[in-house]
Order: sequence, then C-alpha cells, then structure tokens
Amino acid sequence: MKTRAAVAFAAGKPLQVMDVEIGGPRAGEVLVEVKATGLCHTDLYTLSGADPEGLFPAILGHEGAGIVREVGAGVTSVKPGDHVIPLYTPECRQCKTCLSQRSNLCTAIRGTQGKGVMPDGSSRFSCDGAPVMHYMGCSTFANFTILPEIALAKVREDAPFEKICYIGCGVTTGIGAVINTAKVWAGANVAVFGLGGIGLNVIQGARMVGADKIIGVDLNPARQEMARKFGMTDFINPNEVGHDKVVQAIVDLTGGGADFSFECIGNTKVMRQALECTHRGWGESIIIGVAGAGQEISTRPFQLVTGRSWRGTAFGGARGRTDVPKIVDWYMQGKIDIDSLITHVMPLDDINHGFELMEKGESIRSVVVY
Amino acid sequence: MKTRAAVAFAAGKPLQVMDVEIGGPRAGEVLVEVKATGLCHTDLYTLSGADPEGLFPAILGHEGAGIVREVGAGVTSVKPGDHVIPLYTPECRQCKTCLSQRSNLCTAIRGTQGKGVMPDGSSRFSCDGAPVMHYMGCSTFANFTILPEIALAKVREDAPFEKICYIGCGVTTGIGAVINTAKVWAGANVAVFGLGGIGLNVIQGARMVGADKIIGVDLNPARQEMARKFGMTDFINPNEVGHDKVVQAIVDLTGGGADFSFECIGNTKVMRQALECTHRGWGESIIIGVAGAGQEISTRPFQLVTGRSWRGTAFGGARGRTDVPKIVDWYMQGKIDIDSLITHVMPLDDINHGFELMEKGESIRSVVVY
Repeated sequence: MKTRAAVAFAAGKPLQVMDVEIGGPRAGEVLVEVKATGLCHTDLYTLSGADPEGLFPAILGHEGAGIVREVGAGVTSVKPGDHVIPLYTPECRQCKTCLSQRSNLCTAIRGTQGKGVMPDGSSRFSCDGAPVMHYMGCSTFANFTILPEIALAKVREDAPFEKICYIGCGVTTGIGAVINTAKVWAGANVAVFGLGGIGLNVIQGARMVGADKIIGVDLNPARQEMARKFGMTDFINPNEVGHDKVVQAIVDLTGGGADFSFECIGNTKVMRQALECTHRGWGESIIIGVAGAGQEISTRPFQLVTGRSWRGTAFGGARGRTDVPKIVDWYMQGKIDIDSLITHVMPLDDINHGFELMEKGESIRSVVVY
Repeated sequence: MKTRAAVAFAAGKPLQVMDVEIGGPRAGEVLVEVKATGLCHTDLYTLSGADPEGLFPAILGHEGAGIVREVGAGVTSVKPGDHVIPLYTPECRQCKTCLSQRSNLCTAIRGTQGKGVMPDGSSRFSCDGAPVMHYMGCSTFANFTILPEIALAKVREDAPFEKICYIGCGVTTGIGAVINTAKVWAGANVAVFGLGGIGLNVIQGARMVGADKIIGVDLNPARQEMARKFGMTDFINPNEVGHDKVVQAIVDLTGGGADFSFECIGNTKVMRQALECTHRGWGESIIIGVAGAGQEISTRPFQLVTGRSWRGTAFGGARGRTDVPKIVDWYMQGKIDIDSLITHVMPLDDINHGFELMEKGESIRSVVVY
C-alpha cells in the first residue's frame, strides 16, 4: 500500500512530502496509522547532518500516537483498533537489560534499529523501488508506519492523539528523568538547564514530586513566563548574572547547591556547570541533552570524590510499555500539563515550517496531525 | 608536655624525628596516646609538595589507633583509657551533612582542619616556640596528639593497635567504597584498578558482599598473588593486554561490562577506563584515588546517557564514629584480613624508610608502632 510521508532525502535539505510504498506487517510487527506526531530536536539533529549515525533517505519522526490497523503473525499484546504510542526505546521484557530491572535501555532490537531497518534486517518503506530507511524504529513522519510489537505502548482510547504524541518523547524524557532516573524527593532543590520542551517537563516533574526550589537557567528571557507556569520558582539568565557565575548563583540560592540538576541542552560546558552546581556530599547531575558528535565532558575528579554523582538518562529511564500508559493517565487526570507546551499544530504539508519555528526558538512543540 | 614526633619541615625533605611541645586538650578536645600509625600515600603526597594545600612545618599521619589519656571540658563520648581510632572525616551528627543522612562528609570542622589547626583556630603543637601544624585533623606521626571529640571512633579494647590503625584510612576507604558508596550486590561483577592498599581492600569488600567476578587491574605482576588471596578472580596487566584494550578485556570477561568499577590509583586516564568498562544501562564507577592538582577527568556524555554513573567516595562513605567500630569487629571476627596487608612494622625512628618502601612499591602497608 501507499502512505503519505515526509521523506528526508539528504542532510540539510527540507523534507519532501510525498507518497511512499509501505509493506505489510511481518511476524511480530504491527501496522500503525499515525494520527499525530511531534517534531523533536533529535529529528532536526539528524536532518541537519550533524548526527554521525544519520541515514538517508529516511522517514524521520519518533514522537507519535496512532491506531493499530493490522498485526503480523504472533502478535498478541495489541490488536487492530488499539490506541498506541510508538516507542523508540522498546521494552521486550526478555533481554538481559529488561530482566536486570536496572535500566530501560532494552537491547532486543538495538542493532537493526540503529541501521534504519526492521528486526529482520529489511525496510518496509520504499520509493520508486528503492528502500527508504526507518528512523529510531518509529518513522512517525509517515501516516502509516510499521513497528515491532515490543515497541508499542497501548494507551487509553479517550486520550487525544495530538496531545499524547508528545508523551512518545519529550514529556516522558523530562518527567521520567525526575521520577525514574534521579528519583527526586519531596523538598529537594532542583536546577534545570535549558527551558525548552524537555526542561519544561523536568520542571513539571519536579513540581509533581514536591520539589522545593526549582531553578531554571536559560539565555532566552521569553522562556521565563512559561517555566514559572510549570513550577519554576527562580530564574537565572546567564547573560545577566555572567556565564561564569551561574554555579555560584545556584549554590547561593540553595544554601549549598542543588540536590539535583538536569542538563536539557546538549552543551558539554553547561553539563559541567550542572554537575558543579550540585550539593557537596550528595548532589546528582543528570545529563539529558545530546551533545554534538565527538564532544566530551570534563571536570576535576574532586567534584565526584566529594560526593557528587554524574549520570545520564535516555527516554527518562522509562520502560515504555509499562510507564507510558501511566503518563497518559496523569495527563488525562490533569496531574501534568501538555496542552500549553504544544504551541503549534499543522498538517504534514507544513512540516518544514515546524522545523523553522524550532530553529528560531519560536515554538515549544509543533505537532503534525494527519 | 613533650611528645616524640616525626615532623615535616618542608616539602620533599625527610621527616625529622624529634621532641615537640604539645598543649593539653581544650574544651571538646581529647589527648590521645597514639600506639600505632599506618603510612598512607596521602601522607607521601603532601610530604612531596604536590598537595597544593600542604602546610609546613606539620606533623603528618592520619591512620592511627591509640588510647585516650585526657579529655577537655564538655567531652562526654570518650574517657581516659578508651581505645580510639582518629578520624580525618569526623562525625558531628549535627551539621547539615550529617543530618542529611546522605553523606559522610561532615562539615563541622572542615574549615579549620584544612588550615592545619584545631577548631578554635590554634595549633596544639609547637617547636622552639613556633607552631607546628596539625594534618588532616589527626597528626598520628606524633606519639601524643590532640583531636576533637567528634573525630574519635571508640573501639573495642581487645583489638591490636598495630592492625586496626589501618582501619583509620585504607581498610575503611576500600571496604566502605564497596558497601557504603557503591552498595555492591551479591552476584555483581566488579573491576578494581590499582591493587595497592586501597584496591586490595576493595577486593576483600567485594568478596565479603558476594560479588561474582572480581577483576583486578595493575601494572605490577607481583600484586597478583596477594590480590587473589583477597578474592580477585581475574587479573589484567595493561602492559600485557595493551593499555587501550583494558576496557574491552573487562567487557569481554563480564559479558558486557562490570556492574561496578573502582579507581584506586589517582590517574585520570585510568578513571576514564574505569567508567567506560562498566555495563551499559546500570554500571557505576567509583573514584577513590586522588588525582594530581589541576588534573581533569573526561568522557563522552554518551557514556552517561546510556546509563553509566560516575561517582566518587572519600573515607569509603563511612560515618566514622558509627561505622569504624563495626569494621574493627569484622576484623576481630575474621570477616576481613588486615594482617596480610601489613607488610612492614617499624619504630618511629625508621619512618622515612617506610616511605621509601612505599615509593618503591615494596610494601602494601608499613605501620609505625610507638
């Protein structure tokens, strides 16, 4: 069959919206009609050519929500009609990592996913007979896509696709970093570097679990209003206090340092500040942002020997099939806000405009509805 | 009164064994007759002049055991005749850090201790009328020394001083890093970089808590025999496998990476290897070694984002007054071996020879008995 899709033919070029061929689901696979998809910085990173593992041509997009339309042989956990969120971090519940119960980084299909193909080694997408690569195992910039069964979270049917698609990446990454990775406790002081789509979700996660001071750091003063709405209690603009005084400002605000900090930018210099602003003895800094290829973080080991921990998180430490439906519930219960973060909604034909808004910092999240 | 002491008059010079004046204990202070003291790399580091915070003249030594001889006003937790181990990391049980229950790095007397003086800002040692500095709040290279009450762990009286002095630093640092900081679980795979006095104690700590593979890494093949006795299951000599292949060797031996690694050298390049040899998803690397002034650690943030944690520990995360007596018990019960680690015993007059043995790598631990 054919599906409408935005295809990335080459690094640095606009996406091309067109019809592509999509094969039916094979054993263990599921055909999903994507109803909505968010545009994430990671898509832009790959599209830009900066991602050393980026493949072209490919159908990008990894933050979607939709409906199961057909299942392949042996699929038991979802059926046609189910509402689902695609998972770029699957949850097979059988690999060493899943069984360890110590990490969400399921390895069941890691090898093929990174190569832009399905677990059997082939692509389901093609254009003029030539294969088009999958992306992060999701390819939600296609109206119909194919995913392995283990990469689908089944969610409630009364949740609006154009909102919960954001739970497929940004919301879960930010809130999950707080609750799964850092395990922020009630009364903790938290510093959040970067108040974009991830940082704002870190902030509302910290508020949800009862953090005291929630300090936001961003160069863009326009971010302050939204961040305060999400729970930020204090704002630091490095351009105002001085970039080399941000750490001291946080230490002063917290009477010794943040209990937890989160880097939501991908800037290795900021990652160092995020570590060093945490409290001696027990401070934990969590890296969420993705740094450019080859860049390194550094610090004096004294920072760690005196009790700080440097950690990271991917997909908020969430086990997708288990945790994503809970976050959808939290949204439906009003415990978290997604609506305010979705600043732009557009049809697939306007997807390149959505990326322009992102590059200019004018959107928090743009969502494409099919 | 006068006490026999080994005085460090200047960086890089041998210690001078002589009589110095020592004042009596003031309020909150305790006069301790030191019966035995270990020689630690940290003493050598300061004596060499490499320690940017080193002060001279000073009485070094921080790994002692002895008997309380006199207490100052208000001292309630120890009395004359009590057997004690001096603590360079005190435990006041009242500061923000102690009360946090999240760290052992008590801050009660940190400021003055770092300046080589007692909490009231003065030194109790003098020589020809000129003050001689305290060191790490302990100065166990003096037969008699003064400590704040909060820096003394009271221990059982049947434990031999010349063995349990080592619990004042090396033993607790190594075993504590395993049980307090890393919380190594039974069945974990552990990698230990550096098989000196700290590394061997990490090894026996890992064995005590039921680790599976305990992999030792050292350039000195002579360390292998002792390490195996303490519980090491596998040995890697970087000179044999290649320094750039150590990480892969550990990943291969463990089927994916160590669950925990410990850097017991103070080499920032090794610290990076120690991090990167841990398992994707949950590996934790603990820095114990003290790096040279100004040196930095670095890695790609991807290492952390994919689930590894970079941490550190000081004094093994032990709260001295609470935990040190337990470790003395474990020694007396035969759960841990200290005797084999004390390779040399000598009188104070031979202390410089003890440091020569350390520099040549010929001793694990030398102990001075008074």
